Amino acid sequence: MIIVMGAGATEQEVENVIDKVHSFGLRTHPIYGVQKTVIGIVGDDKTRVVENMQGMPGIEDIIPILQPYKFAGREAHPDNTVIEVGGVEIGSKAIAVIAGPCAVESEEQLLAIARGVRDSGAQILRGGAFKPRTSPYSFQGLGEDGLKFLAEAREETGLPVITEVTDPRNVEMVCQYADIVQVGARNMQNFALLTEVGKSGHPVMLKRGPSSTVKDLLLAAEYVIIEGNRDIILCERGISTFETYTRNTLDLSAVPVIKHLSHLPVIVDPAHATGRNHLVEPMALAAIAAGADGIMVEVHNNPDAALCDGPQSLTLSQFDSMMEKLRSIARIVDRSL
Amino acid sequence: MIIVMGAGATEQEVENVIDKVHSFGLRTHPIYGVQKTVIGIVGDDKTRVVENMQGMPGIEDIIPILQPYKFAGREAHPDNTVIEVGGVEIGSKAIAVIAGPCAVESEEQLLAIARGVRDSGAQILRGGAFKPRTSPYSFQGLGEDGLKFLAEAREETGLPVITEVTDPRNVEMVCQYADIVQVGARNMQNFALLTEVGKSGHPVMLKRGPSSTVKDLLLAAEYVIIEGNRDIILCERGISTFETYTRNTLDLSAVPVIKHLSHLPVIVDPAHATGRNHLVEPMALAAIAAGADGIMVEVHNNPDAALCDGPQSLTLSQFDSMMEKLRSIARIVDRSL
Amino acid sequence: MIIVMGAGATEQEVENVIDKVHSFGLRTHPIYGVQKTVIGIVGDDKTRVVENMQGMPGIEDIIPILQPYKFAGREAHPDNTVIEVGGVEIGSKAIAVIAGPCAVESEEQLLAIARGVRDSGAQILRGGAFKPRTSPYSFQGLGEDGLKFLAEAREETGLPVITEVTDPRNVEMVCQYADIVQVGARNMQNFALLTEVGKSGHPVMLKRGPSSTVKDLLLAAEYVIIEGNRDIILCERGISTFETYTRNTLDLSAVPVIKHLSHLPVIVDPAHATGRNHLVEPMALAAIAAGADGIMVEVHNNPDAALCDGPQSLTLSQFDSMMEKLRSIARIVDRSL
Amino acid sequence: MIIVMGAGATEQEVENVIDKVHSFGLRTHPIYGVQKTVIGIVGDDKTRVVENMQGMPGIEDIIPILQPYKFAGREAHPDNTVIEVGGVEIGSKAIAVIAGPCAVESEEQLLAIARGVRDSGAQILRGGAFKPRTSPYSFQGLGEDGLKFLAEAREETGLPVITEVTDPRNVEMVCQYADIVQVGARNMQNFALLTEVGKSGHPVMLKRGPSSTVKDLLLAAEYVIIEGNRDIILCERGISTFETYTRNTLDLSAVPVIKHLSHLPVIVDPAHATGRNHLVEPMALAAIAAGADGIMVEVHNNPDAALCDGPQSLTLSQFDSMMEKLRSIARIVDRSL
Repeated sequence: MIIVMGAGATEQEVENVIDKVHSFGLRTHPIYGVQKTVIGIVGDDKTRVVENMQGMPGIEDIIPILQPYKFAGREAHPDNTVIEVGGVEIGSKAIAVIAGPCAVESEEQLLAIARGVRDSGAQILRGGAFKPRTSPYSFQGLGEDGLKFLAEAREETGLPVITEVTDPRNVEMVCQYADIVQVGARNMQNFALLTEVGKSGHPVMLKRGPSSTVKDLLLAAEYVIIEGNRDIILCERGISTFETYTRNTLDLSAVPVIKHLSHLPVIVDPAHATGRNHLVEPMALAAIAAGADGIMVEVHNNPDAALCDGPQSLTLSQFDSMMEKLRSIARIVDRSL
Repeated sequence: MIIVMGAGATEQEVENVIDKVHSFGLRTHPIYGVQKTVIGIVGDDKTRVVENMQGMPGIEDIIPILQPYKFAGREAHPDNTVIEVGGVEIGSKAIAVIAGPCAVESEEQLLAIARGVRDSGAQILRGGAFKPRTSPYSFQGLGEDGLKFLAEAREETGLPVITEVTDPRNVEMVCQYADIVQVGARNMQNFALLTEVGKSGHPVMLKRGPSSTVKDLLLAAEYVIIEGNRDIILCERGISTFETYTRNTLDLSAVPVIKHLSHLPVIVDPAHATGRNHLVEPMALAAIAAGADGIMVEVHNNPDAALCDGPQSLTLSQFDSMMEKLRSIARIVDRSL
Repeated sequence: MIIVMGAGATEQEVENVIDKVHSFGLRTHPIYGVQKTVIGIVGDDKTRVVENMQGMPGIEDIIPILQPYKFAGREAHPDNTVIEVGGVEIGSKAIAVIAGPCAVESEEQLLAIARGVRDSGAQILRGGAFKPRTSPYSFQGLGEDGLKFLAEAREETGLPVITEVTDPRNVEMVCQYADIVQVGARNMQNFALLTEVGKSGHPVMLKRGPSSTVKDLLLAAEYVIIEGNRDIILCERGISTFETYTRNTLDLSAVPVIKHLSHLPVIVDPAHATGRNHLVEPMALAAIAAGADGIMVEVHNNPDAALCDGPQSLTLSQFDSMMEKLRSIARIVDRSL
Repeated sequence: MIIVMGAGATEQEVENVIDKVHSFGLRTHPIYGVQKTVIGIVGDDKTRVVENMQGMPGIEDIIPILQPYKFAGREAHPDNTVIEVGGVEIGSKAIAVIAGPCAVESEEQLLAIARGVRDSGAQILRGGAFKPRTSPYSFQGLGEDGLKFLAEAREETGLPVITEVTDPRNVEMVCQYADIVQVGARNMQNFALLTEVGKSGHPVMLKRGPSSTVKDLLLAAEYVIIEGNRDIILCERGISTFETYTRNTLDLSAVPVIKHLSHLPVIVDPAHATGRNHLVEPMALAAIAAGADGIMVEVHNNPDAALCDGPQSLTLSQFDSMMEKLRSIARIVDRSL
C-alpha cells in the first residue's frame, strides 16, 4: 500500500500520517521526492484500516498494491481450477457448451429442446425456473415445477442441468434439483445469496453484473470461496455502456483478463449481452477464440412463441450449425469440443 | 406499440406480422411509407407477447409507446406522494435531511452522532447494521445489535431511523426496529427482497443501482408497489461511468427527471456517489437546487477512525455548517428546512 | 417518423401538431390508442424540421424510423464494398493485416519492422508521423520526415502504407506519401478533417471514437461519402466504460453489427483498445472469428525502448506466432489470409 | 512514479528494472514487501520513458504520482484565474451568464434574442456560425455571415460574444469577430485546433468531451497553455453513459473537482447535456449551487422554429424567470450576479 501526500503537505502532516500507520503495527518506507512525498507501507493485511485514513490532512491518495481477492486470484492458486459436473469438465482443455431455453415453459417444450441440443453436442442443459425480470409484468418462471421438469429432462437426456437461484431461501431447494446453481448478473453483489450458495458447496455459476469490473466479479467469487466452496464458474455477459444497438456491450477482453488474474473457469453468454439473434453465433465463435472455457446460449424450438427472450434465442438448427463452427475454432486454439 | 418493418420486408412478411398481432386479439394500423412500413398496434397490455415477435422475418424493430411502470408513474398518479415517518414528511414542501454514521459501530458512537446531527437539524437518523461490502474482508456490520442501538438512539433523540436490509429473511426483524428500511444500490434488482419489503408495508428507501436507468429504478419501485406498499422514497446515489476521480458519477439530472416521470419522492446521497469528503457539501446544495426532496449524508464524530467509508464522512461541524447553507438554498427553491 | 403525444395531451394539442406537420408538406397518420395518440408521418426527408417540434406542447417523444445514414447504410448498397490499395483488397474474402510501429521513430527502426512484418505475412504497413497524444508532453511524431521514411519503406518492402492525419491543412501532404490516410478516434467527429479527407478521394480508415455509437460512426463516414469518397474502412478500437483494467473496452459485437448495417469493411485494433500486450493476440483471433475484415496491430523490434505505446506493442516473434493462428481462424470462418 | 513488480517476479527481473530506470538517470527506492516488491522512482520528468517500460518482464503495473498537467493544475498556480472579456469577469466572485441561440440563423433572430437576454441580465452573447453536427444532413451554420451578425449584435447590445471554431484554418478569422472562441466537445482532443487557438492568445472556452475524464480535459487545456495562452474557461456539458432519457449525463461533481484540481474557471452548459427544455433551469441552479463560475444556455425567440437544438432552448420568458432564481442562488453561495 502506498500513501501519496499532496504537494502542499507539511512535514508535520507527513509525520502524523507515519505515526498513525505505525499505530496499526505496520512499517513505513517514506520516499521524499522533489514535489511530493510517498509513503510505502509494508505489513500484513490492514487494508481496511489504512483506507480509512484517506481523510487525514495532507493525504492526496492511497493506492493499494496487493490484489484484494486472496482465494480467487491466480497468485494464490497458479493452476486452472477444473470443475466436474455429471461427467462434464469445465475449465479443462474441453470446451463446455450450455444450452437450453431462457425459461422452462412446459415439460414438452423443455424435453424437445433438451433432446435437440444434446443431439447437436451440448453437454449441459440450461433453463430458468425463477426468472428475475426488470418488469414485474413479465413472465416470472414456473418455480419448483420448472425445477422438476429440469430434473426429468436430465433423467431423459443424461445432461446435467443449470438453473438460476434468486432467493437465499430457495438455495437448498434448487440444489436438490440442479447440478449447477446460477447467480444472475443482477444478484452478483447480493451477498446474502452468495453466502448461502457458498455454504451449499454446490457448483455455482456467477454472472458478472452489468456495472461490475472484473475486480468486483472476483471479489464476489471470494464471498463464495470463503464459505468453503471453490467450484465457481465465472460468466461474462455484457456491461452497461452508452451503445444502444446491443442490449449490453459484451466485454470479451474480460475473458483473457480473468484467465490472467484468476484460476477459475470463465464462460461467455453472448445472447444476453447482445439481445439479438444474429449476433449470437459470431460472438460465440469470438468467445472461444479469445480463450473462454465455454459458452452458454439460449435455444428454443419456437422462438416466436417463447415467453421470455425470444428475440435472442437460437433455433435448434441455428444451434446445430453453430456447434459445427465452434468445434473447428476449438481445435485452432488447442481445445476440444 | 409500433412495429417497424425493415426496408427489404416483403408484402408477405408484413401480412404475416399483422396476422400474428391479430392472433393476440390486438388491432393494427399499418402505415405504408416510401421506404418502410410501420405497424401501429392498439389494445391492452400485451407488451410481453408482442416483444417476443422481434425475431419474426422482416421485423426491424419493436418500439413500446406506453410507460412500463403503471403505478410508479405520474400519469396514473399526478399528485406528489408524501410519506410520513415519525412526524417527518418526505415529498412535501419540507426538505428531509437524513444523517448518521455509515455503519453503527457502538452504542456510544451512535448516540454521540445522533445527538449531534439532531442538534444541527437532521430529521432522520441513518446507520448501517447490515453492510453490503464489495470485499468480504471489509467490516460487515453489527447485525441485530446494531439495530438495537438504532432503536435506543431513536428513543433518546426522537429521530426516526433508517437502516439497510440485505436479506429477505431479515425484513421482518429489521422492520421491528427501523422506521424506514433501505434497499441498497446493489440490491435494486434483488426482486425477492423487493417483494418482501413490499409485503411488509413498511416505508422503504430504494437506491438506484449503479448501472440502472431511471426507467429501471421506476420498474424496481413497481415491484414494491404491486405488493400494496406505496411508501417508497427513491434515492439517486451515482452511476458507473469512465470517470475515476469520483467513485461514481452523481446523476443529478435524474432528480428533475424522476420528479417529471413519477410521483414518488426522491432524495440524493452525495457521499456514496462521490466518495470524497470535499464534494459532499457542494453536491448536497446542488441536489436541493435541482429539486430533490431531501439528502442523505454520512456523519461521523471521528472520521479518521471510522470502520467504513471514513473518507466520505462529514464531521459534526462540517454537517452543521452545511445545514446552514441548505436552509438558505431550500428557501430559494420555495421549500422549507 | 413517429410523434408520440403525452397521455395528458389535449385534442387541441394533437390538432396543432398535425397542422404543424402539414405545414411542412408532410402527410400524417394519427392512431388514437386507449391512453395515448401516436402520429405517423410519411414524406421525404424532413427529419431536421420535425425534430425541432420536440418542444411543442403535448409532444412526449419523436421517434425517427429511417436510418439517418443514406450512403453508408446497407439498405442503399446491399453488396460489400471492397477497397483495393496497392494490390491488397480490404472487404473481400481476404483478411487484411496491417502492422507496424505505433510511431515512426527512425528510418532504421521502420525498415527493420517493415521487413519483419512483411516476412510474417502482413499486407499493409502502419506507422504514425503525426501522433495525437492526450498529453502535450508525450512524443508527437516526426511529421513529414516520418512520412518520407514510410514512403521509403514501401519502396523497399512493397507494402502499401497507412498513416494518420490530424489536421485538415496536412491532408494533401499526407496523401502524397500514404496509400491510406487514417482519421483517429479523437478526430472521428472533426468534421473539417472528414470533409477534407472526403475531397481528397484517397482511401481512408475511420476509427470509432471512444464515446461514439455505431450509428455515430456511420454518420461520420457519411461526411466523407457525401464529398464523393466511398473508399472508407471502419475501425473498432474500444469505447470508454467503467472497466479500468483495460484502457478501453473493445466492443467486438460492433463488428457483426456494422457488417449488418453497412456495406463498408470493418477492421479491429486490439492493441489500442486493451493497452496490454498479453491481450492483443486473443482479441485479434476473436476479431476474425467475429467476422472482421482485418486487424491492425502495433509491432516493434524493441518494445521496451519504443517512444510510444510500448506496453501494447508485439515483438516481431509474437507477431509471427499470431499470424499462424490468424490463418487458421480465417479458414474456419471461410476467409483467406 | 511507482513500479509494482508482480508477485512472481524474480530477483533478476527486479534488478533488470532497477538498472533500466538508472539508465535514464533516475534514482530508485525499492521496497521489499512480503508478497511484492515496489520500486519508488525519484527524479525529474521522465514519465514517458518509464511508462514504456510497462512491457518489461516482471512488471505488473506502473503508477504515476505527479499530476500530468503542469500549468493547468492548482499546484503550480494556487490562485483562481480570472479572465476579463469586454468588461465581464469570469472566474471572480461574479457569476457569468452566457446566453443566445444555438445557431445564428439571421440578423433579425440574433438581434431579437441578444436584446432579450441582455435585458434579463446575460453578460455574454453566444451563437454558432460553424456548427459541428453529428449528421451531415443537419444545418451546418451560416459561416462568416453568422460571425458578422454576431459582431453587429455586440455593437448593438454591448455584450461580448462567444462562438465556436471547428477548423484550425478559421481560427484567425473567428478571432477577428469573437471575444471568446469556443472549442466544442467533439474537438476537445483536436490538438491541431487547440494549438492554433493557443497561438491566437484569444480567450477560449474548452468544452469537455463526452468520453473525457477531468484529467483529459485539463491535459487538453495544457495544449493551449503551452502556446502561451492562459485565458481558458473550462465547460462541463455532459458525458456519455448508459442513461438514455437525457442526451448525456451532466457530471456536476466535475465542477468542485475541477475547482479543486485547477485554477481555471469552470462553467456549465445544462442544455446540451440534458437535451430537454424542462431540465435546463433545475440543472442551471444546481450548477451554481455546486460552485460553477457561470452557465451557458440556449435561448430562442421561437424554439419551435429553431434550425438547431430547438427542444432544449429556453424561451426569452423562461430565461428571464431562471435569471431571477440564479441571482438568489448566487447570493447563497456568496457570489454575485
